[in-house]
Amino acid sequence: MAHRQGITVGFVPARTNRYLDAAAGLPLHPVAVQAWLAAGDDGWADPSKLTGPGRRSAVLLDAARQSMAESLGVRADEVSFMPSGTHALQAGVLGVLAGRRRTGRELVHSSVEHSAVFKAADWHVAAGGTVRVVDVDRHGQVDQEQFLAAALATGVGAAVLQAANHEVGTRQPVEPVASLLAEAGVPLVVDASHAVLYGELPENLPVFSLDARLWGGPAGIGVLVIRRGVRWAPPFPVDDTEDRHSSGGVSVPDAVAAAASLRAFIADRSGQAERLGRLVDQVRTAIPRLISDAQVLGHPTDRLAHLVTFSCLYADGESLLSEFDRRGFVVSSGSSCTSDTLTPSHVLVAMGALTSGNVRVSLHPGVTESDVAEFLAAVPSVVAQVRAELPSMPESTASPPAGPDPAVIDSRGRRCPLPILDLARAMPGVAVGAVVTVLADDPAAASDIAAWCRMQGQEMLEATELDGGGTAYRVRRASPA
Amino acid sequence: MAHRQGITVGFVPARTNRYLDAAAGLPLHPVAVQAWLAAGDDGWADPSKLTGPGRRSAVLLDAARQSMAESLGVRADEVSFMPSGTHALQAGVLGVLAGRRRTGRELVHSSVEHSAVFKAADWHVAAGGTVRVVDVDRHGQVDQEQFLAAALATGVGAAVLQAANHEVGTRQPVEPVASLLAEAGVPLVVDASHAVLYGELPENLPVFSLDARLWGGPAGIGVLVIRRGVRWAPPFPVDDTEDRHSSGGVSVPDAVAAAASLRAFIADRSGQAERLGRLVDQVRTAIPRLISDAQVLGHPTDRLAHLVTFSCLYADGESLLSEFDRRGFVVSSGSSCTSDTLTPSHVLVAMGALTSGNVRVSLHPGVTESDVAEFLAAVPSVVAQVRAELPSMPESTASPPAGPDPAVIDSRGRRCPLPILDLARAMPGVAVGAVVTVLADDPAAASDIAAWCRMQGQEMLEATELDGGGTAYRVRRASPA
Repeated sequence: MAHRQGITVGFVPARTNRYLDAAAGLPLHPVAVQAWLAAGDDGWADPSKLTGPGRRSAVLLDAARQSMAESLGVRADEVSFMPSGTHALQAGVLGVLAGRRRTGRELVHSSVEHSAVFKAADWHVAAGGTVRVVDVDRHGQVDQEQFLAAALATGVGAAVLQAANHEVGTRQPVEPVASLLAEAGVPLVVDASHAVLYGELPENLPVFSLDARLWGGPAGIGVLVIRRGVRWAPPFPVDDTEDRHSSGGVSVPDAVAAAASLRAFIADRSGQAERLGRLVDQVRTAIPRLISDAQVLGHPTDRLAHLVTFSCLYADGESLLSEFDRRGFVVSSGSSCTSDTLTPSHVLVAMGALTSGNVRVSLHPGVTESDVAEFLAAVPSVVAQVRAELPSMPESTASPPAGPDPAVIDSRGRRCPLPILDLARAMPGVAVGAVVTVLADDPAAASDIAAWCRMQGQEMLEATELDGGGTAYRVRRASPA
Repeated sequence: MAHRQGITVGFVPARTNRYLDAAAGLPLHPVAVQAWLAAGDDGWADPSKLTGPGRRSAVLLDAARQSMAESLGVRADEVSFMPSGTHALQAGVLGVLAGRRRTGRELVHSSVEHSAVFKAADWHVAAGGTVRVVDVDRHGQVDQEQFLAAALATGVGAAVLQAANHEVGTRQPVEPVASLLAEAGVPLVVDASHAVLYGELPENLPVFSLDARLWGGPAGIGVLVIRRGVRWAPPFPVDDTEDRHSSGGVSVPDAVAAAASLRAFIADRSGQAERLGRLVDQVRTAIPRLISDAQVLGHPTDRLAHLVTFSCLYADGESLLSEFDRRGFVVSSGSSCTSDTLTPSHVLVAMGALTSGNVRVSLHPGVTESDVAEFLAAVPSVVAQVRAELPSMPESTASPPAGPDPAVIDSRGRRCPLPILDLARAMPGVAVGAVVTVLADDPAAASDIAAWCRMQGQEMLEATELDGGGTAYRVRRASPA
């Protein structure tokens, strides 16, 4: 291909799978491409330079900041462009901590924040700060009073709460929390990346971050909004050519493309929240009917309109994802950011939800009713196939790895979902009221065995750490089911 | 314009000035635009995702890293993409310090490094580290033995030395310094942004950073090379989706465009170093003939081929830059990164060079012989005009601000270059062998008065800080000139 000259790339065939993974980012919006090309002509120079090209870049950057501010209902001088959504969020969190260093060094955040917040928290602790994590309920929502109690304690430098969760869609009470914290002078830092898309953002957020990939902007740009009056200091070294509005370096064409594509996205989204909400409702209603032992996650009503997540027993997310891909659908699984690691999704663990067999479906304006209908039509056979391919299915003839005591199942060394498969297979041999013990060392087992018990009406009694690694989970057969 | 829909930008007329400011960045290379568009189609997704689009992005990112590595003569796993050249340099410096925290917390760097290094050093000090700055000679070059002595002292975590200076072009002895430090186990971190362009980079640099803007790549991308065996740890929080190869977030289209445009730049550069070197030599020879009281800066021979800087007395750089712009030439002035502040260029101050009236001319493959000839033709009248517009010229009739004692000139409150103008004007009334005192509070005066004395054959005796601010400079009239 002529337009690839100058770089050797492997030939990657274009795929036309239905893309149901909007929460991982959208392809470049055509307006983003047009704006990037136009800004590349006049905005290639460093906008901090006093030369002609520098001044022309600065004019474009100012226009992009103004356009972004109008889209968000804030002032232009409250908008900063950052090199990514992650950078924007971390700069928001750590910059408020830096600005309020004398007030307090404690960072308060919920247990279901984006992994970028946890990484920023680790960094804050390494620098001598402290962190308090506020738990969520089984829908993934913080209790407003509990969050406020933590955030209003003495010595709190910053409180962080996402507007809505990126994995399960549950909204957090950011509007009342921001107001009550503002009265006490504590600025709430909000990851607003997903909630901003369909206009669900309250107006009173003092600090919030966005990721341009989610509306079809370039990958290399995020937005940090710091409202007037908030104390904020750059948490990372900046160069002389940078200010708080372009911390970490900013590409003017990327900023122009991000602003232009957000404006275009907003112009196109009329009615989309309702339409995508109806499609999501169809998925939420259909999943429990289409597959056994499945759990739709997240708050039933207080949630993002365009995103739904479910988990199913006896299947692993990565296999589901691959099989959906093979059948023509792109979805996400597990923690969308940690699916390439062995750690279970911290969001699902924090909710006490089943972590294995997790599938996130997130919609965008290009998704049609028939796309969703065809996805739902594929669900039963995809799940059945993945379940059938797992070793040691409950209905298979393979022997479970039983220890010398039949009431003890040794699943150590077996990765999830195998420990719950082993438990499910052993259950018919356990008398109602009797106790069975599962030994497991996969970190996801704690969450998954508890979730399995709830789903199956069995009783999780206790979990005891074993000498030499792993955990013993004691489960009473409460239900004959 | 149709391709600007979605964003309101002020109308900025395209200018066709001759661009002689390559060291501030080049317009996007056509190959960069083509590669960005192609990679936008297949590389828009987060390359850490396990979905189809994510895997296609990862393939493109790997290909870009491989291409970049081939261009630089290193291994692909030694190449990291960063969101800017500044970020790459700071991550190189602070990452080596982080990786060698137990070995030592002292950072050694030259006094003429890019401002990004000084900012990183401030940050390191705020975190409890120490910094030792190694002086340069009047050409802006460190003494190899002196630098080694500092860098080989006990407790040094990192040593930083630019391959060549971004303001005056002087090369540093990075090849021998890197080798000798390597024997002692101290990794040298090198800002190689400018030296890489025409293949002047030695092969033994353990850590070096690049800025894609300098070869026509996108603004939002820098490159950090960390050779195998160097201990390096991420100095900033990273997200789970990032590794050391994409720290701070990376845009795959930007990475692909950076790699493709560097390859194209290298393919086109044959013979350019010699050609641009001849043009630069013409400028170096012509300037002292064309204008009085001018100084060509930087090492006479051990320097970048494509860049030349000169300073002239009784003129200020910003006015020169504006007047050149009006006459159709884009050049830079002062510290290229601090020209929008009142601080004099730290590079010129460190060299003891004249900071005012500074002009940097930096060439690129698109510059023709006639461009340079026309620039040189414009120099005399541009300088004469700027000098004529300054208040209180030596040959003007305005009264100098003399104190009660005629041997004391009170230039406090007057910005450079006015203090040296006042001194020059007073000199004819000072007897040869007598002493005149200049009181000044502009921070550039220290460097400028010393430089003026050298240029005029006068003798700078001493500088004494005054109670209440400012400095008294005592100058003996050694020469009747």
